[in-house]
Amino acid sequence: MSGPRYTPLVASLPATVPFVGPETQERSRGRRFKARLGANESLFGPSPKAVAAMAEAAAEVWMYGDPENHELRAALARHHGCAPSNIVVGEGIDGLLGYLVRMLVAPGDAVVTSDGAYPTFNFHVAGFGGVLHKAPYRGDHEDPEALLARVRETGARLVYLANPDNPMGSHHPAATIRAMIEALPEGVLLILDEAYVDLAPEGVAPEIEADDPRVIRMRTFSKGYGMAGLRVGYAIAAPGLVAGFDKVRNHFGVGRIAQAGAMAALQDQPWLAEVQRRVEEARAELGRIARANGLTPLASATNFVTIDCGGDGAFARAVLQALIARDIFVRMPFVAPHDRCIRVSCGGPAELAAFAAALPEALAEVRG
Amino acid sequence: MSGPRYTPLVASLPATVPFVGPETQERSRGRRFKARLGANESLFGPSPKAVAAMAEAAAEVWMYGDPENHELRAALARHHGCAPSNIVVGEGIDGLLGYLVRMLVAPGDAVVTSDGAYPTFNFHVAGFGGVLHKAPYRGDHEDPEALLARVRETGARLVYLANPDNPMGSHHPAATIRAMIEALPEGVLLILDEAYVDLAPEGVAPEIEADDPRVIRMRTFSKGYGMAGLRVGYAIAAPGLVAGFDKVRNHFGVGRIAQAGAMAALQDQPWLAEVQRRVEEARAELGRIARANGLTPLASATNFVTIDCGGDGAFARAVLQALIARDIFVRMPFVAPHDRCIRVSCGGPAELAAFAAALPEALAEVRG
Repeated sequence: MSGPRYTPLVASLPATVPFVGPETQERSRGRRFKARLGANESLFGPSPKAVAAMAEAAAEVWMYGDPENHELRAALARHHGCAPSNIVVGEGIDGLLGYLVRMLVAPGDAVVTSDGAYPTFNFHVAGFGGVLHKAPYRGDHEDPEALLARVRETGARLVYLANPDNPMGSHHPAATIRAMIEALPEGVLLILDEAYVDLAPEGVAPEIEADDPRVIRMRTFSKGYGMAGLRVGYAIAAPGLVAGFDKVRNHFGVGRIAQAGAMAALQDQPWLAEVQRRVEEARAELGRIARANGLTPLASATNFVTIDCGGDGAFARAVLQALIARDIFVRMPFVAPHDRCIRVSCGGPAELAAFAAALPEALAEVRG
Repeated sequence: MSGPRYTPLVASLPATVPFVGPETQERSRGRRFKARLGANESLFGPSPKAVAAMAEAAAEVWMYGDPENHELRAALARHHGCAPSNIVVGEGIDGLLGYLVRMLVAPGDAVVTSDGAYPTFNFHVAGFGGVLHKAPYRGDHEDPEALLARVRETGARLVYLANPDNPMGSHHPAATIRAMIEALPEGVLLILDEAYVDLAPEGVAPEIEADDPRVIRMRTFSKGYGMAGLRVGYAIAAPGLVAGFDKVRNHFGVGRIAQAGAMAALQDQPWLAEVQRRVEEARAELGRIARANGLTPLASATNFVTIDCGGDGAFARAVLQALIARDIFVRMPFVAPHDRCIRVSCGGPAELAAFAAALPEALAEVRG
């Protein structure tokens, strides 16, 4: 008896996983982490009002969620000053990226991203047979000019840019993004991943007409709103593109607790402001810790700080491992020259103190 | 400025939706339903222990869920007497069906199902360009012989069967399913959708070696466990097929509250037994109500009763509309001759009383 026959495309895919979770590491280490600073989760947590709404919704979870996400889309539309027909809600940005790539990328189609940018986007492009073309960062920034050049060279109709960027934490001002949109060749769609924009300074999110067919903006409740484990993201785009998701999406994929939590979180903007304040403090503290150890913190418009360890990739990887051995979960960029850095999420005083205690020991061990 | 270019496959898909949610109907009616008996949700709700676990997990939802679903898979493996490598957890059976079809169905590939069976499976097959071949039911049962004949005729490598069946509520004994598996041509995979099996009598779920490469069994926390709005399903299959899901799935798609709720529900088997008891009572009561109105309830191995209205599709549709007009949410089979029926979910005394009050009025209206 033989197993099933995979499609040629799926048979050709590697069995890799975009990210190994901290729980997997904890299991193999046989020990919990003391500080969970590797996945850019919000250690400040969700709004207490959202926690209450989710707890209340738990008793009603026997009902499917509304497959149209009607109330949440209406609230998001009010929040962004657009129409509900400009909003699609999905299972995190990851889920929405998967649907979008499926809608737009046929086998062999060229797609452009930055070398070292979000691996899960690459996972989806490869998963639907797209051909990735990568533009280098310019220093620690994704490079709109280089991305546009790759688009023109390859004839790609889809280009990905995150602003602010992950894993470097850098950002472009709104005007740079606006200029990139104006320079897109006819028929090219920009995926503007704004997962971290809730934590960026004023002036990072550009004004974009929601009906503009050239851009789809991705937003999430995972970062600023502190609900990574709830799996709710949304996109803002022209109504035609939003309607296209209905052809492929898992219509009941956003459940009732997720809808209730996202709605309550959106309505508690004071909590988001409080998180922004705490993130700013934590970024400053992470900077102090880095400098106190002779390392260089990069400027961050996100809820993490990328720290230049001052050596090569092997050196930073050794620092990372030495931190992990001291029960500090952190991650690092995958690609040179960014892999000279480690990436540390913002946290409260206890987690940052644990990091501050472990870092000099880790550096001492690695420096011999 | 033009919009993005869809893949030829996605461009060819209709913008249809498998199911219209009751909330959509409530919005267009401007009025809530009194009894939500149309989506085969469990009106008896989830285990109170699961509700408590979800409420507790809400405060921890700032963390992503474990992308390997390690603890839940281990618990499910213990529950079913197989290995964790035999279990894949996903965003409901709907989500898992989408991944599976993507893995196995290339454009033009033949796929076999029953005419009138689960529309969301058909949605996925069409969505990946598969060609559906349908076998008729035999009476009110899906027909393994006819399905196998269609498999042989079309060279399909994938065949879907639900046991118990939705929308008819019928079932085959385990031996019939076993015989079907033994008769599958080499290399053909049976998707055995057991969404309702937790509510079926003993002897419906066949013994299947978890490593058997001929079958993938789909299970869910939506029906017996009463958590449709949580979006947790799982499949039991050979380790190679389970591992294949890692190539395409949304690795962080099952969140932290979902994992906690499913785990607690699985551990509260007495609650499932209590639900089974209440479902049995409700089925009997729905049968009495149907017969008291001159209608014929079909035997059910599920948490709903399909009621033969004794006329044609137009008659049953009119009864359905008359019930909806009286604030009773029910659905009905899509395809003749099954569309002579309406399908009513089990509920508690209040919902069944509301149905019992509305049905004679609805019939009187339709019969003129």
